[in-house]
Amino acid sequence: MLRTHTCGELRTEHIGQTVTLCGWVQRTRDKGGIAWVDLRDRYGLTQLALEEGVETDAVRDQARHLGREFVVQVTGKVAERHSKNDKLPTGDIEIRVEKLDVLNPAKLPPFLIEDDTDGGDDLRMKYRYLDLRRNPVRNNLMLRHRMAQAVRRYLDGQDFIEVETPVLIKSTPEGARDFVVPSRMNPGEFYALPQSPQTFKQLLMVSGFDRYFQIVKCFRDEDLRADRQPEFTQIDCEMAFVTQEDILNTFEGLVRYLFKEIKNLDFPTVPRMTYADAMRDYGNDKPDTRFEMKFVDLTDTVQGQGFPVFDGAEVVLGINAITCAAYTRKQLDELTDFVKRPQIGATGLIYARVEGDGQVKSSVDKFYSQDELRKWSTALNANPGDLLLLLAGPDTKTRKALSELRLEMGHRLGLRAKDTFSPLWVVDFPLLEFLEEEGRYFAMHHPFTSPKPDDLALLDNPATIGQARANAYDLVINGVEVGGGSIRIHDRAVQARMFGLLGFSPEEAQAQFGFLLDAFEYGAPPHGGIAFGFDRLCSLFGGADSIRDFIAFPKNNSGRDVMIDSPSPISRAQLKELSIKTDVVVK
Amino acid sequence: MLRTHTCGELRTEHIGQTVTLCGWVQRTRDKGGIAWVDLRDRYGLTQLALEEGVETDAVRDQARHLGREFVVQVTGKVAERHSKNDKLPTGDIEIRVEKLDVLNPAKLPPFLIEDDTDGGDDLRMKYRYLDLRRNPVRNNLMLRHRMAQAVRRYLDGQDFIEVETPVLIKSTPEGARDFVVPSRMNPGEFYALPQSPQTFKQLLMVSGFDRYFQIVKCFRDEDLRADRQPEFTQIDCEMAFVTQEDILNTFEGLVRYLFKEIKNLDFPTVPRMTYADAMRDYGNDKPDTRFEMKFVDLTDTVQGQGFPVFDGAEVVLGINAITCAAYTRKQLDELTDFVKRPQIGATGLIYARVEGDGQVKSSVDKFYSQDELRKWSTALNANPGDLLLLLAGPDTKTRKALSELRLEMGHRLGLRAKDTFSPLWVVDFPLLEFLEEEGRYFAMHHPFTSPKPDDLALLDNPATIGQARANAYDLVINGVEVGGGSIRIHDRAVQARMFGLLGFSPEEAQAQFGFLLDAFEYGAPPHGGIAFGFDRLCSLFGGADSIRDFIAFPKNNSGRDVMIDSPSPISRAQLKELSIKTDVVVK
Repeated sequence: MLRTHTCGELRTEHIGQTVTLCGWVQRTRDKGGIAWVDLRDRYGLTQLALEEGVETDAVRDQARHLGREFVVQVTGKVAERHSKNDKLPTGDIEIRVEKLDVLNPAKLPPFLIEDDTDGGDDLRMKYRYLDLRRNPVRNNLMLRHRMAQAVRRYLDGQDFIEVETPVLIKSTPEGARDFVVPSRMNPGEFYALPQSPQTFKQLLMVSGFDRYFQIVKCFRDEDLRADRQPEFTQIDCEMAFVTQEDILNTFEGLVRYLFKEIKNLDFPTVPRMTYADAMRDYGNDKPDTRFEMKFVDLTDTVQGQGFPVFDGAEVVLGINAITCAAYTRKQLDELTDFVKRPQIGATGLIYARVEGDGQVKSSVDKFYSQDELRKWSTALNANPGDLLLLLAGPDTKTRKALSELRLEMGHRLGLRAKDTFSPLWVVDFPLLEFLEEEGRYFAMHHPFTSPKPDDLALLDNPATIGQARANAYDLVINGVEVGGGSIRIHDRAVQARMFGLLGFSPEEAQAQFGFLLDAFEYGAPPHGGIAFGFDRLCSLFGGADSIRDFIAFPKNNSGRDVMIDSPSPISRAQLKELSIKTDVVVK
Repeated sequence: MLRTHTCGELRTEHIGQTVTLCGWVQRTRDKGGIAWVDLRDRYGLTQLALEEGVETDAVRDQARHLGREFVVQVTGKVAERHSKNDKLPTGDIEIRVEKLDVLNPAKLPPFLIEDDTDGGDDLRMKYRYLDLRRNPVRNNLMLRHRMAQAVRRYLDGQDFIEVETPVLIKSTPEGARDFVVPSRMNPGEFYALPQSPQTFKQLLMVSGFDRYFQIVKCFRDEDLRADRQPEFTQIDCEMAFVTQEDILNTFEGLVRYLFKEIKNLDFPTVPRMTYADAMRDYGNDKPDTRFEMKFVDLTDTVQGQGFPVFDGAEVVLGINAITCAAYTRKQLDELTDFVKRPQIGATGLIYARVEGDGQVKSSVDKFYSQDELRKWSTALNANPGDLLLLLAGPDTKTRKALSELRLEMGHRLGLRAKDTFSPLWVVDFPLLEFLEEEGRYFAMHHPFTSPKPDDLALLDNPATIGQARANAYDLVINGVEVGGGSIRIHDRAVQARMFGLLGFSPEEAQAQFGFLLDAFEYGAPPHGGIAFGFDRLCSLFGGADSIRDFIAFPKNNSGRDVMIDSPSPISRAQLKELSIKTDVVVK
């Protein structure tokens, strides 16, 4: 090895030993005849010392010419420090340098390699290999490594087998847009990159693999947002001969194991909530349950008093923002602006303060008597000092808007601390949802999800199709959907019927999913599974909002890797071999 | 759960318990008033028994109607068997069935779900989900799972961090042909799928990650052979601040750990051989060292005696096929035909038998006296009963042919047992090789491999470029290259020069690999690594020749997945969105 120790391991017990370290120059100082160099590697930081009259002039001269981020190899004796640094594990010692070699010099980095850097997003992405030197970014990826190891350890211990499924598969019309790969050997034909290994894991259940998992890259060619990447990683799992209850228990075990291993947090069982209750109480199928602030339906309470906004509304819903009665006019205006943003879309915000004496003062006092207003306060279980916030309008839209307002208030009240974790199972999702713009039903989870047996009859009547519930479930933590799954269909006839409800002709279903339908006729066991968004799970455990910080080499919002400058044009010869042309002029 | 136990776990201590099992019907028998059903799952086989007058007529009638591969759930009491089966871990017990439910019936499978099946390759690939039910195939994938877990455990224990690198990267002209992915958001531009994460892992070293690994899918759009797949899996590793010696030691440790964990085999250190010695002694840079049978250069010994074939040859090389003197004329003709095959390309085979009395009898006796022939025998260290096999011709071609003959003889002599393992490091590979058909040098390993410092001067002279050796090494087990790597270049100037030797203009080098060249200027540490072919490593540990048996859903030699019928045409709308056209008519 080029070193005897790392920059993170020397302690007072090493004093007197001659050691060799390698690393990067974090910073240099020269004061009162002593030069200091902080040497950094993945494991830590060690101080080098070069004193006039003690270390040789030659080596001191070398040290003086070191620049930030130079890669050096130093040999010297471990010595006790004069002024110790409690904040550093190696803070009790320093190296008195005898020999110093520059293994590679470095140009001045375009931004500071420090925990807080002066580099903007674009610059840091272009020089991602320098950004990755910063402790917070490296720690994120080390957390990711530990999470992946823990997931595998847990699942292996539960008899799950990791099986690699193919990356070059077949394009299917259902779901998101596929990335495709032209086949040179089969001109005019294309592979698709998997959006998930869904059908393969189901086939593994048909094969009797019983318990499968895979930490696997998946791909979706969708327009990107801050928290979405064209390639992302799933923890993909499937089990045979199980009920929904078995799956919830097994993966609740995984989540509790991860919290214990990674965060040293003990969790009791994960609570469960139906989709219907989540929508009723939080207006959201992934409620942030770190705090309550449930919706209260005030429609009956507030209507009929002559206030046109409420009287004309399908629903009037309220939340109690506890302790916020002292909100200023400006703060209330901010909240009003917040709910009126186009992406939230409420037409206005009605508020009422519960004052110290229990009096309720609202923005619509002229329509409501004190007695009426007290009914609001009672319904919302409010105390003096609380602020009542009401939205009115069409049911779905109003719930959605109030959900956003609730999250905003939770944030303002400090109820959404990143180091508090509130996991929740949301169960009994609807099987299908009707998309007006497409004029047909779509699978809410995916087309392989089984309806609840009790709700099968609802599928016979066009008027009740949308009411049928699925054996589908999501794992939500802190308002983030980190996993979702379902008990699958394992019967050819039910699966064929499902494809029919989704608008496939029998021929189309056979052409696209014939292999699966056929497989169901050769002894398919009851089965179900779940997939977790691994990037998101890591960011949640790491206390960050964006998944990008937990991906070594992410792409930007245009799907570009600005570091390697990809995608890029390819040669005419490559296009010709692949039997394709592009509509864009090729160099 | 739908079951209380698996089909592999019941023993005599469970006798008397009421249990519920789920599984597939392996076979049914009905004899002397007792019906037996063998129920199978991933964990084993359990016998169900239904006796006239004991079990109810109703349940016995159900059992009689079970077909092969039906999926059933049975409840009953564990009972001691009358005639026990030693070969089965559950062979001491049977289940007296009280309740039987068919969870899913099955059509008759197109081939037998048995260890030895009657299904041909094509049929088994089309119904891969049934093929995967067979024990040998499932065991292969379970071995693969255990190998992957062990690799991760070992490397994690050595402070390696698994980092996921991107799948959507940039097409580069060097190396094999890329699979490409049209970018919808960047019309006319393409991603490429990685042939390996080479540049990314080097950037991670520049980032200070120090020890990286990844078990990762890689892609090559090459014409396929039996043992090559368009997508394959690598154990990809890289270390910083190391010499070649450190890397060999670290990964020798991995190999020894795997042999111990998976095969319970203890290995001493892995021997090393230079590329030059391997070519000299075995005519092969991946010699099968399970047996000796080294080449002996007989050129000087045999030339000048008037035999034109030898006298006109660049080299005459021999091997000693011990104990084969009794080979019949027919066997020798087979060997002659073997070496004359076009893919081997020798013009003929000269042999000589060492008889019981030490007399040597050759096929060219009229040119060689007994004294001359005894020199052959001495040179080849032969004993009475041995057979000497000689090939003559141009050096490279003759070595290649004799290497094939040596492997064939090793096979015939039973010296290549699948349960014997002989790992070997081959070191000091040439840096570059000149490809006549391309008229230029190519990197023997890849363009990022560093020349040996002592050989740098050889690169200055066009006449000696090909002699420069690299800090490159392969791990060979039983004649199979299972891994290869090198110490990398970490200096911009050296890397730029290397690109120059490979025919890149400075502009081309900057356009393709500018990010890496730039990175080398910001403090790149000395580093090196290795990558193992994981599919091949698994097949080797599993004692099989083909990697296909160790891949859950492999593709055929045309790159097709015949089960899902991929690749396939995509719609006009998809093509249009991607700004591409195909030269082939689209439906």
